[in-house]
Amino acid sequence: MRQILSRLKGLLLTIILISSLMLSLNEGDHEGLLHLASGGSEFSSAYLFLFFIISGAVAGRFVARKLNQPEVLGELLFGVIIGAVLFQLNFPEMILLRHQQETQAAVEIMVKEGTSLKTALESIPTIDEREKESLLKIAADEKYTHYDLTIKSILLFSNLGVLILLFLVGLESSIEEMIRVGRPSVSTAVTGVVVPSLLGTGISYILLPDKSFSLHLFMGAALSATSIGITARVFRDLNKLQLPESKIVLGAAVIDDVLGLILLAVVTGIVKQGSIDALSVAAIFGKSVLFLGITLYVGSKFLRQQIKIAAILDNRNLRLLFPFALLILLAWISEAVGLSGIVGAFAAGLIIKEEYFNEALKDKERSVKQVIEPVESIFAPVFFVLMGIQVDVSAFANTTVLGLALLLTIAAIFGKLVSGVFTKGLDKKVIGIGMIPRGEVGLIFAGIGKSIGVLDGNMFSSVVIIVILTTLITPPALKWAFDGYDSRNKT
Amino acid sequence: MRQILSRLKGLLLTIILISSLMLSLNEGDHEGLLHLASGGSEFSSAYLFLFFIISGAVAGRFVARKLNQPEVLGELLFGVIIGAVLFQLNFPEMILLRHQQETQAAVEIMVKEGTSLKTALESIPTIDEREKESLLKIAADEKYTHYDLTIKSILLFSNLGVLILLFLVGLESSIEEMIRVGRPSVSTAVTGVVVPSLLGTGISYILLPDKSFSLHLFMGAALSATSIGITARVFRDLNKLQLPESKIVLGAAVIDDVLGLILLAVVTGIVKQGSIDALSVAAIFGKSVLFLGITLYVGSKFLRQQIKIAAILDNRNLRLLFPFALLILLAWISEAVGLSGIVGAFAAGLIIKEEYFNEALKDKERSVKQVIEPVESIFAPVFFVLMGIQVDVSAFANTTVLGLALLLTIAAIFGKLVSGVFTKGLDKKVIGIGMIPRGEVGLIFAGIGKSIGVLDGNMFSSVVIIVILTTLITPPALKWAFDGYDSRNKT
Repeated sequence: MRQILSRLKGLLLTIILISSLMLSLNEGDHEGLLHLASGGSEFSSAYLFLFFIISGAVAGRFVARKLNQPEVLGELLFGVIIGAVLFQLNFPEMILLRHQQETQAAVEIMVKEGTSLKTALESIPTIDEREKESLLKIAADEKYTHYDLTIKSILLFSNLGVLILLFLVGLESSIEEMIRVGRPSVSTAVTGVVVPSLLGTGISYILLPDKSFSLHLFMGAALSATSIGITARVFRDLNKLQLPESKIVLGAAVIDDVLGLILLAVVTGIVKQGSIDALSVAAIFGKSVLFLGITLYVGSKFLRQQIKIAAILDNRNLRLLFPFALLILLAWISEAVGLSGIVGAFAAGLIIKEEYFNEALKDKERSVKQVIEPVESIFAPVFFVLMGIQVDVSAFANTTVLGLALLLTIAAIFGKLVSGVFTKGLDKKVIGIGMIPRGEVGLIFAGIGKSIGVLDGNMFSSVVIIVILTTLITPPALKWAFDGYDSRNKT
Repeated sequence: MRQILSRLKGLLLTIILISSLMLSLNEGDHEGLLHLASGGSEFSSAYLFLFFIISGAVAGRFVARKLNQPEVLGELLFGVIIGAVLFQLNFPEMILLRHQQETQAAVEIMVKEGTSLKTALESIPTIDEREKESLLKIAADEKYTHYDLTIKSILLFSNLGVLILLFLVGLESSIEEMIRVGRPSVSTAVTGVVVPSLLGTGISYILLPDKSFSLHLFMGAALSATSIGITARVFRDLNKLQLPESKIVLGAAVIDDVLGLILLAVVTGIVKQGSIDALSVAAIFGKSVLFLGITLYVGSKFLRQQIKIAAILDNRNLRLLFPFALLILLAWISEAVGLSGIVGAFAAGLIIKEEYFNEALKDKERSVKQVIEPVESIFAPVFFVLMGIQVDVSAFANTTVLGLALLLTIAAIFGKLVSGVFTKGLDKKVIGIGMIPRGEVGLIFAGIGKSIGVLDGNMFSSVVIIVILTTLITPPALKWAFDGYDSRNKT
């Protein structure tokens, strides 16, 4: 009892300290001056948010473990909960976070046309009125730049988090292994893009017969792209990265990214010009293949030597600095050719081999994996908590949207579930479920559809619901599929 | 020969790949659409910059080691060189980086008054005409938001870098050790603030007799604050953190931060109201003491238990996640009370003891220090390279400025050199040199002086030169002082 009291005392003191400080924060200009004068950085709110995200992720993982679920589910749900709470409490950071695309577009218009931020925001068409009002209020808030900076800082952490995660996933595989699963990966990727797109277009056509065909096309395309972050994380949480099924899903995700780019070019070509722009399709395909080809070639031929040269320059933290530098470089290049950064990060992991470092450094103390994993544990949870935070629960409130969204979600899930149908002798369930999650790519498709006036707010909300449901379903579903897999392979 | 050729081939291929990609980058809107569609993040340029900074830092450290200099000098000089080159090449990111304060102020005016960015920038008074022109051009550039985001991302890394560095420095000390050097630390801090301020005010008064006394006060105050980053890094590079002299300098830096805040309140009070605002001086002092007192009390009394509780929640990366979370939390709190974030980070290091984790986790595999050091090796070099990048070599071109600046620099150096005069039985040279570096705090003093119209552009440039010279002199000077120290203590 006494011990508990003494523990509580520490906690209480901490809480009193923090809250009295928070109260003392808003003391006007003078305070601001001092804050600046002391070298107080503009990033202090970002630190506080990061602190809460990292602590909350720890709590979420703990709960998920107790419930015998993949840890990532705990991070996602923690995000959903604090997202809903903070949004209800009108936290400006939360509103900005949920409206990143709109604010970004507004700032670009502002710069391009030299208008004020307010005018630019007003010209953005498709935000709903109430939310536009709160956005306008925030944009006129003296602290707007601080809110914006906080969001951007967290987004940077989140982006780096998923890059480091995919790097580690790549590290546990190799080029040779990926080539071995090349054929089933291609069939999985193609099936997983074609089936949901056709289903989505069909359902949209049947349910909304009076809408344009472009709309149906966009809805279909929005269902096509798998978001690999969730699946990769569950594979890691459950220690299943070495299974052939996992390799196939990872390979398919890379190909999926290329296919998604091509599909977007096709769909926007049809909508804008009424025809397929064969040249840009060829260009995308060529650039993607060139990037992957050169990376893997240079990686397998010259990386060993480059690591030896780097070891001469600096051998102290080589196992961290070299992989990290390579991963951000390849992420940049892959984004430069139009692919997603995670493809580059994954490729960086693929081409790096632990033995290169063991040779160059002549010690085997700690592996690259052991050095990078702690760094990942800071960054990656930010990505998943942020995914949860961006879940807008109110999307479920509109019943007409909800009906359409649920049907499309079923199509989205079924379309990916069958994606492993052409793989032989493997667990098609694991592959199919692994391909289910949709993420930012689906949202971006829908966002472009909205920005060129093809999709309305309801259609966009449907895509949001699809993303939410497929994201939250996947971790427990994969766990369940692997439980079956394990018990089958044991007996 | 053949081997060299084959190595060059790899390098050449990499260069061709990168440059062809860079050329293919600007293909207009279509590309942008695809880039966005693929989930391509807005952070890709930030990745590229980070890649170059991290690689360059490796090269800089290598050269410094070869020249038998502290590694940090290599990072600083690499920064100076690429800063000068990129600035000459008119890199927008570089121009924005050098004019952070002005752009920040402009954006704040823009938000507050609802004007366009251009109007806001034009209303910022004290930028020189040519530079204002290039700023206006960048602010109207379509890619402005990308440039801005890149800068902010690098600044976030840089800020975190110096926090993690100071945390590690704190980790190698303890509350008890700091209390032991309390008295000499106070005397060093007070002497090191009073002497340079008086000298600076005096020199300014003698050289510029027709200027206002407020100007002399501000010039003096700008010389007062030690920037501990450089010194802390050199202590670590040379493995001297355990010496009593090092502890005194670190303690003095914390006290120095409090004194700097008080001095600023006094000086602005005198300039604005003609009197000292005793209440705000007391408030600053009270808040600082309260923060440090509560932190150290809670830390020494309850941290052991809190780590045990945290170990129940998540024991996998506890040695990284707990210290990191604590460090950003205390950095936020210390910035909230007006102190600099590094004071909080340093305090976090002071209160954490390796034994707490050894008890809670019942393993001794890797210490907190061993886990955090790799993370530091990514972030901290960004801080020092960025310091170098921000060195504006052209400040030295103006001969009237240069004369004044050199005299003030001598005063700044001398004033800190004597700061250890009241310490007994210790190497006063090491202490004095350790206190020499001025940094962002001096610039912020000067910046505030400029913004309230007390200082003109020339005076501001003088402070820039003082910061540059004291920063670049310290690493080799400390090395030299320690060489003497070592040879004396050996014989």
